[in-house]
Amino acid sequence: MPLDSLAPLSSEELEKINAYWSACNYLSAGMIYLRANPLLREPLKPEHIKHRLLGHWGSDPGQSFTWVHLNRLIKKLDLNVMYIAGPGHGAPATLSNGYLEGHYSEIYPQCSQDERGMLELFRRFSFPGALGSHCTPETPGSIHEGGELGYSLSHAFGAAFDNPDLIVACMVGDGEAETGPLATSWHSNKFLNPIRDGAVLPILHLNGYKIANPTVLARITHEELEYLLRGYGYTPYFVEGDDPATMHQTMAATMEHCVEEIRRIQKQARETGKYERPRWPMIVLRSPKGWTGPKEVDGHKVEGFWRAHQVPVLDPATNPTNLKVVEDWMRSYKPEILFDESGKLIPALQELAPSGERRISANLHANGGLLRKPLLMPDFKEYAVVVEQPAQGYVSPTATLAKFLRDVMKCNMTNFRVFGPDETASNKLDGIYAASKKTWEAEFYPEDEDGTEIALDGRVMEILSEHTLEGWFEGYVLTGRHGFFSSYEAFVHVIDSMFNQHAKWLEKSKNELSWRAPISSINLLITSLVWRQDHNGFTHQDPGFLDIVTNKRPDVVRIYMPPDANCLLSVADHCLRSEDYYNVIVADKQAHLTMLSMEQAVQHCTKGIGIWDWASTDNGAKPDAVLACAGDVATQEALAAAAILKEKCPDIKLRFVNVVDLFRLMPEAAHPHGMSEEDYDSLFGTDIPVIFNFHGYASLIHKLAYKRTNHDLMHIHGYRERGNINTPLELAIINEIDRFSLAIDVIDRVPRLQQSAAHLKEWLKDQRIDHVNYAHREGIDPPAINNWQWPLGAAK
Amino acid sequence: MPLDSLAPLSSEELEKINAYWSACNYLSAGMIYLRANPLLREPLKPEHIKHRLLGHWGSDPGQSFTWVHLNRLIKKLDLNVMYIAGPGHGAPATLSNGYLEGHYSEIYPQCSQDERGMLELFRRFSFPGALGSHCTPETPGSIHEGGELGYSLSHAFGAAFDNPDLIVACMVGDGEAETGPLATSWHSNKFLNPIRDGAVLPILHLNGYKIANPTVLARITHEELEYLLRGYGYTPYFVEGDDPATMHQTMAATMEHCVEEIRRIQKQARETGKYERPRWPMIVLRSPKGWTGPKEVDGHKVEGFWRAHQVPVLDPATNPTNLKVVEDWMRSYKPEILFDESGKLIPALQELAPSGERRISANLHANGGLLRKPLLMPDFKEYAVVVEQPAQGYVSPTATLAKFLRDVMKCNMTNFRVFGPDETASNKLDGIYAASKKTWEAEFYPEDEDGTEIALDGRVMEILSEHTLEGWFEGYVLTGRHGFFSSYEAFVHVIDSMFNQHAKWLEKSKNELSWRAPISSINLLITSLVWRQDHNGFTHQDPGFLDIVTNKRPDVVRIYMPPDANCLLSVADHCLRSEDYYNVIVADKQAHLTMLSMEQAVQHCTKGIGIWDWASTDNGAKPDAVLACAGDVATQEALAAAAILKEKCPDIKLRFVNVVDLFRLMPEAAHPHGMSEEDYDSLFGTDIPVIFNFHGYASLIHKLAYKRTNHDLMHIHGYRERGNINTPLELAIINEIDRFSLAIDVIDRVPRLQQSAAHLKEWLKDQRIDHVNYAHREGIDPPAINNWQWPLGAAK
Repeated sequence: MPLDSLAPLSSEELEKINAYWSACNYLSAGMIYLRANPLLREPLKPEHIKHRLLGHWGSDPGQSFTWVHLNRLIKKLDLNVMYIAGPGHGAPATLSNGYLEGHYSEIYPQCSQDERGMLELFRRFSFPGALGSHCTPETPGSIHEGGELGYSLSHAFGAAFDNPDLIVACMVGDGEAETGPLATSWHSNKFLNPIRDGAVLPILHLNGYKIANPTVLARITHEELEYLLRGYGYTPYFVEGDDPATMHQTMAATMEHCVEEIRRIQKQARETGKYERPRWPMIVLRSPKGWTGPKEVDGHKVEGFWRAHQVPVLDPATNPTNLKVVEDWMRSYKPEILFDESGKLIPALQELAPSGERRISANLHANGGLLRKPLLMPDFKEYAVVVEQPAQGYVSPTATLAKFLRDVMKCNMTNFRVFGPDETASNKLDGIYAASKKTWEAEFYPEDEDGTEIALDGRVMEILSEHTLEGWFEGYVLTGRHGFFSSYEAFVHVIDSMFNQHAKWLEKSKNELSWRAPISSINLLITSLVWRQDHNGFTHQDPGFLDIVTNKRPDVVRIYMPPDANCLLSVADHCLRSEDYYNVIVADKQAHLTMLSMEQAVQHCTKGIGIWDWASTDNGAKPDAVLACAGDVATQEALAAAAILKEKCPDIKLRFVNVVDLFRLMPEAAHPHGMSEEDYDSLFGTDIPVIFNFHGYASLIHKLAYKRTNHDLMHIHGYRERGNINTPLELAIINEIDRFSLAIDVIDRVPRLQQSAAHLKEWLKDQRIDHVNYAHREGIDPPAINNWQWPLGAAK
Repeated sequence: MPLDSLAPLSSEELEKINAYWSACNYLSAGMIYLRANPLLREPLKPEHIKHRLLGHWGSDPGQSFTWVHLNRLIKKLDLNVMYIAGPGHGAPATLSNGYLEGHYSEIYPQCSQDERGMLELFRRFSFPGALGSHCTPETPGSIHEGGELGYSLSHAFGAAFDNPDLIVACMVGDGEAETGPLATSWHSNKFLNPIRDGAVLPILHLNGYKIANPTVLARITHEELEYLLRGYGYTPYFVEGDDPATMHQTMAATMEHCVEEIRRIQKQARETGKYERPRWPMIVLRSPKGWTGPKEVDGHKVEGFWRAHQVPVLDPATNPTNLKVVEDWMRSYKPEILFDESGKLIPALQELAPSGERRISANLHANGGLLRKPLLMPDFKEYAVVVEQPAQGYVSPTATLAKFLRDVMKCNMTNFRVFGPDETASNKLDGIYAASKKTWEAEFYPEDEDGTEIALDGRVMEILSEHTLEGWFEGYVLTGRHGFFSSYEAFVHVIDSMFNQHAKWLEKSKNELSWRAPISSINLLITSLVWRQDHNGFTHQDPGFLDIVTNKRPDVVRIYMPPDANCLLSVADHCLRSEDYYNVIVADKQAHLTMLSMEQAVQHCTKGIGIWDWASTDNGAKPDAVLACAGDVATQEALAAAAILKEKCPDIKLRFVNVVDLFRLMPEAAHPHGMSEEDYDSLFGTDIPVIFNFHGYASLIHKLAYKRTNHDLMHIHGYRERGNINTPLELAIINEIDRFSLAIDVIDRVPRLQQSAAHLKEWLKDQRIDHVNYAHREGIDPPAINNWQWPLGAAK
C-alpha cells in the first residue's frame, strides 16, 4: 500500500499534532512581527509591531512540520534524534520548538514559558544585540549555524559517525542543495557503517524558492529528481502537497516507515555482521514556501512563492489592510486555545513533546562537550627521532607523526578519526593504516587487497572533497569527539570559508555561552607545502591560509610551525589535548633534518619561540644581526645560511631564533600567546637588523609584529608568488628564502661587513646562479644540497 | 541497434586511429621517462632515463583516446571543438596531441616535429623551470589548468555560452567528480540555451582511482551511476572496456551519435524557436587507469589500478628488469612505424588530425583574447547622481550601478553576462533585468510572470553556487567575452581558492606568454558588506577576501573601494574596459550619501586617493591630524566624525583623505599603482597622527603601508571580529569604526587637545552608550543617525 494512502494518525492525534504545529508557526510569526501583545489578547495595533521587521518565514512551517513528526516518533519508539537545520534563515522553527519543549527557558530563564517570556523571545529575535535569525551557537539543540549554506549533510554525517543509536534528521534546503559542498556530501553514505555508526535521515525540503529565484531541484521533473537521489544512493520517499491534514498523515506514515527501515538495516547488519551497502531512506518534503502564511498580499502571491522567503507582509504598522492580514494570519493558528491563561502551551499539547534529553532541543549530542571524553594518549616522546647532534639526519616529520597518530587511533577506536582528501598516503601519514584502514562502504575489488587499504570499518576518512571532510570533522567534534585532518597547503583555501564559520562558532560559544561545554579542537595539518612542489608547480604554491586564520579572534586560533619531526610530535600532542581551538600545524611531508632532541623539542615548543644557541655565534655578546625563521624549509635554509656565514665570515656575531608558535610574535595584549615587549626585545633586539625567513607570505610577519620596537629593522623573506616546476633550492632562490640570499641579506644589513664581505657576497650570488643552472641541466638539486647537514664542528 | 554493437570504422580507419593513439601514448610515456634516445633507435639504457621521474601517466591514455576520436569527427563533420582536461595531472595527453597537430611547434619552435624537437619536449616536461604536469597556461589549446580540481565543467559551460557553433568536450575525472564544485556544476545544463549557446559534451572518465584510493563513482552500481547522470539531466552513453579495437568502434559510434544528437537538438530549437529542456548527451568512458601501460611491475598490478596514477615503473635507471619493462612498454607502440626518419609523425597519420584553427590545440576560443571584442560602452556619466552639495542625499550605489550595467547589457547582448548567487535582486542590481532577465532552462510556472524575472534567453546567471558562477565567468572571459559578478562579501571566501588559481593563470599568461592575447578582467563586486548585516549577523561579517587578493602579484589584482554611487560608476566603467586583471570592487547595496559630483568622482577615482578639501579644516596649514578612510561605511563615519570635531572643536586642523584604489597605499616599487614616497608623505605627513578608518581588517592597511615614513603614527580602525545582530551604528561602535570612536581617537592622538577636549571626549563616550541603548530598546538607529548629512554650513 503506498505510504501516501496510509493514515496512521487517529483524528485526535492528527488534531493535536496540527495544533502543536500551529503553536510553532504562531511563535515563528510572532518572532518576526510582535513587540507587544504576544498572545493577541487585544486587537492587533500598529504599536504592537516591531519598528523593523527582520527574519525569515519561508522555511519555518516546513521545518516545524518535520520537527513535530520527529517528536511523535521519538516518543513512540524512544528514539535518540538530533536535528540539523540546513535552510539558513530558519531559526524561528528551531527556536519555537526549543521554547515549546521548555529547554529554551531552562537556558534562558528570561524567556520563560508564559506571556512575559514569550514576549521576551519575540523581542529578542532578530533584534540588535540579541538573537540571530540562523541557528547560531546561542540556539539550544543546534550544532549547525546555517548562515553559510552547504554543510548541513556533512555535519549530519559527522554527528552520526560512531554514534550507533543516534538518528540525525537533516533538513536540506533546496537552495542549499545547489551549493557544491552540499551536492557532493550526499555521497557521505558511502562512508557510513550501519554497524558502528548511527543513521542520517535527510529530508530534502522542496520549498521551491530561494531569495528571489526558483530552485533547480524544484523545477526538474519528478522522475529526474528521483533518479538523482537514487543515483546518490538513497531510497527517496515523497511527501508532497499543501493540505495540512493529508500531509500530516503522509508524513507520519512516511517518517515512521523510514525509521523502521533504518532500524531494519541496522538490526540486520548488527546481528549478522554482514551487509550490502544500504540504500538509506530519505524524505522529499515538497511543501509551499511560507506554508499556512498569507496567500496573497497587495495582489501578489505569497504562500508558495519567493515572496514568502523573508517577511511576507512588509508594512502592517503603516497599512491598516495589511495589519489585518497579519492579524488574521496569526489568529488562524488560534493562540487562545493553544496557550493557557499564563501563556504556556496547554498540557494536552505539551505531552506531544518528548521529555528530558530526548527533547531534540536538549539532545546531549548537540552540546557535544558534555559527552566528550579526553583522548587516551600514548606518550608522544616514545616516537622521538634520536638526535645526537643537531641537524644531522633526514626524517619525514609527517611519517614520524604517523606512528604517534597510529597509536592514538589504537587507543581511541570509538571517538577519534583521521581525515584527508585522498592524500593520507601522499602526505606520508599512511602508517596510520596499521591501526585502522580507510572507511569504504562502496564496492570492493579483489585487487584492493594489494595496498588500497580500504575497509568497511576503517576509521580514516578519505574523499576528494575538502568540504566534505571539514564538514564531517566539524560534526564529529561538535558532538564531542576528536580528530585530525591533513591537507595540501594550497588547497586548504578550498575551505577558507568553512574555517571562518567554524571559528565564528567557537568565538561565540567559547566566550559568551557558558552552557556550551568545551569541544575538541579542529586539528588541521597543512602539508605538501609550497616549497616542495617539485612536480606540481605554481598552482600548488599558496601559503595564504595563515592570513585568513590570523583574521579571527586570538582566543580561538593557533598556528604552529614545528621545524622538525620531534617538534611536530610535541605540537601534535598539545593540539590533540586542547579544547575550543582551530589549531593549524604547518609541517612538510618530505624528509627534513631533525634539529632538536625530544627534550629540547618539548622545551622549545613549550616556549613557542627561542634562541638556538648551537646555531648562534654571538656567544652572549650583542649580535650583529638576528637570523630568525619559522617553518621547516625556512628554518633549514636559515640554518644553512648560518653555517655558511660561520665558515666564511668567522667573526660575525649572529643570533639564531626559531619560531614555532606564530602568535608569540604578537603583543601580549593582542593574543594570549603574545610576548611581552621585554621578552620580544630580548630575542630580537631593539637596534639590530633581523633577517627573518618565513614559510609564508612575508606580510604576515609584518601583520603580527608591526608594533614591535625594532619593526623597522625586520627584513622578512617569504613566498613571493614566483614559481613553476622547480627543484626545492631553485624555488627557494627564486623567492629569496634560500641560504645564499639570506647570507647576502645579512651582509647587506650589517654595516661592518659591507667592505670585508664584498667578495663573499659575489661568491654567494654565483652560488645561486650555479645552483639554478645545475637544476635546469640535471633536473635535481646537487647532492651536496640534498644531503646538507649542520656542520658537526659548528655545533656547540 | 545498441551503439556498442556498431562498428563504424573500417579496418584501415581503425588501424590508423589506433596508431595515432599509440603515438600519443608513446609521447606521454616519453615525457615521463626519457632524457635521450627519444625514438628508441638504440636499446634503452639507464643513462637515457631522467634523473627524477615526475609526471602522471594514469589518465593520459584515456584522454588521448577521446581526443583522437574528437579529431575524427571534427574532420568528418567540420566541427568546432574545444577540449577541457579535467583530470589534473593529464598534461601529457594534451601536450602530445598539441605536438602531433603541429601547433605546439608553431608556438615553441624548439620543440620541432623531429627527433631533436621531440627530445626537447620530453626533456622539458615536468622539468625545473620548464613545463608543468597540468595544462598550465603554457599549454596551447587549454583554458583550464586543472591543478586544483573541480572546475572543468563550469569552465566548459562558460566557454559554450554565446558560442552557438562551439562544442566543448569536457573530460571530467572521476576523482574531480567527488569535489563539491564539480558535483553541482552538472546542473549547468539548466542554464544552457540550445538556440543561443553552444554545446558541452561531458565525458566522465571512470578511470577508477585517485592517487591512492578507488573513486566513488567507479564503485557504485552501473544502475546508480546511470540514475545519477539522468538525475543531473543528461542522457549518458557508456563506453566501457579495455580492448582497444572494440573500444575504438564503440567510442566512434557513441561519440558520433552524441554529436548527431547535439546537432539535432540545436537544429530543432533553432529552426522552431521552441524546445523542451534538452537531455544533452554525455559519455561515460570506463577504461583502465594507465591503459596500455605495464600490467604488472614487481609483482603488483599496475594497469587498471591506483599504482598507474603517476610513474608506473619507478626504478628503470637502477633496476635492469624494470628498464626492460619500460622499454617493452614503449616499443609496444611501435615508434619505428609511427614516426619517419626525421622523427616526424608519418603523413598517413598526420592526416587524421584536423588542420589550422580546427585543430583542438589551435582552437581560437582557447586563446580567447584573439576573439575578444571590446565592450560597447554607454557613457557612465549619464547615470550620475546629481550632487549640489556633498553628502546631502542617500542613494544606493549598487542600484545606481544597475542602470549602467543594464545599458552595458543592452549594448552587448552576445558577449556580456552578469553573474550572482541568487543575490542580484538582493544586491539591488535588479535594474539589470530591464535589459535581460535571468537565464532559466528548467520548468516555468504561471506565477513566474509575477516578478521571478526568469527567461529562456536571459543573460543574468544565477545559481546558488559561487563556485559554479565563478567557473562560468572564468570560462566566459577566457574564451574572449566580458562579465560582471556580484556576491555577498562574507561568502566570497567560498571562492578564495578559485580566485587564487585564476590569478595564477593571469600571472603566467600575462607576463610570460606573449602568444596569449589579453582577456577581459574578472570584475567582482563585493557587496552586502560586513557593516550592514542587520539581520544576518556575525556569520555574514567577514571582509577578509581582500587579504587573499593582496597576496597575489601586483600586476594582476586591483581593489577599489568607491565611497559613493558616482565613484562606483567611474570605477565600474574602468574595470569593464580593463584587461588581464582580477578587479575587486567593494561597494554597499544600502543607501549611502553621495559625496562627490560625477566630475569630482572621475577625478578622485583617477587619482585613486585624495584630500577632500570640503571635509578638511586645515586650510592648507599643517594639520593636527589626518583623518583617512577607505570604504563607503568607513567613509561616512569618518565624515561624521569630521563634522562633530568641526562643530565641537572649531580650532582643530584636520585633513580628510579618502582612498578609492587601495593599492595606492603601497610603495611605487611594489605595485604599479603604488605612490611615491613624496606623494604619500604629502597626503599623510611624516610626523602627524593618521587616524585611518578602514572597511576591512585593520591589519591589511598595515600590510600595505608598513614601509611608509609615518607608519608608526598610523592608527587603523577596522573590523575586529565583533558582531551579532546589530544596527549599523551599533556594529560600528562595537568595532570602533564609528564617528564617536574616531573623534575620540583624534583627540587622544593630538596632544594639544587632551586638556581642552576632555569634556568633549566624555560626551562622545556617552554618545556611544546612548546610541547602543537606543538600538537595544527600539531595534533601530535613531533617525538623526539614519538621516545624517554633512552639515551644509560646513561645506566649503
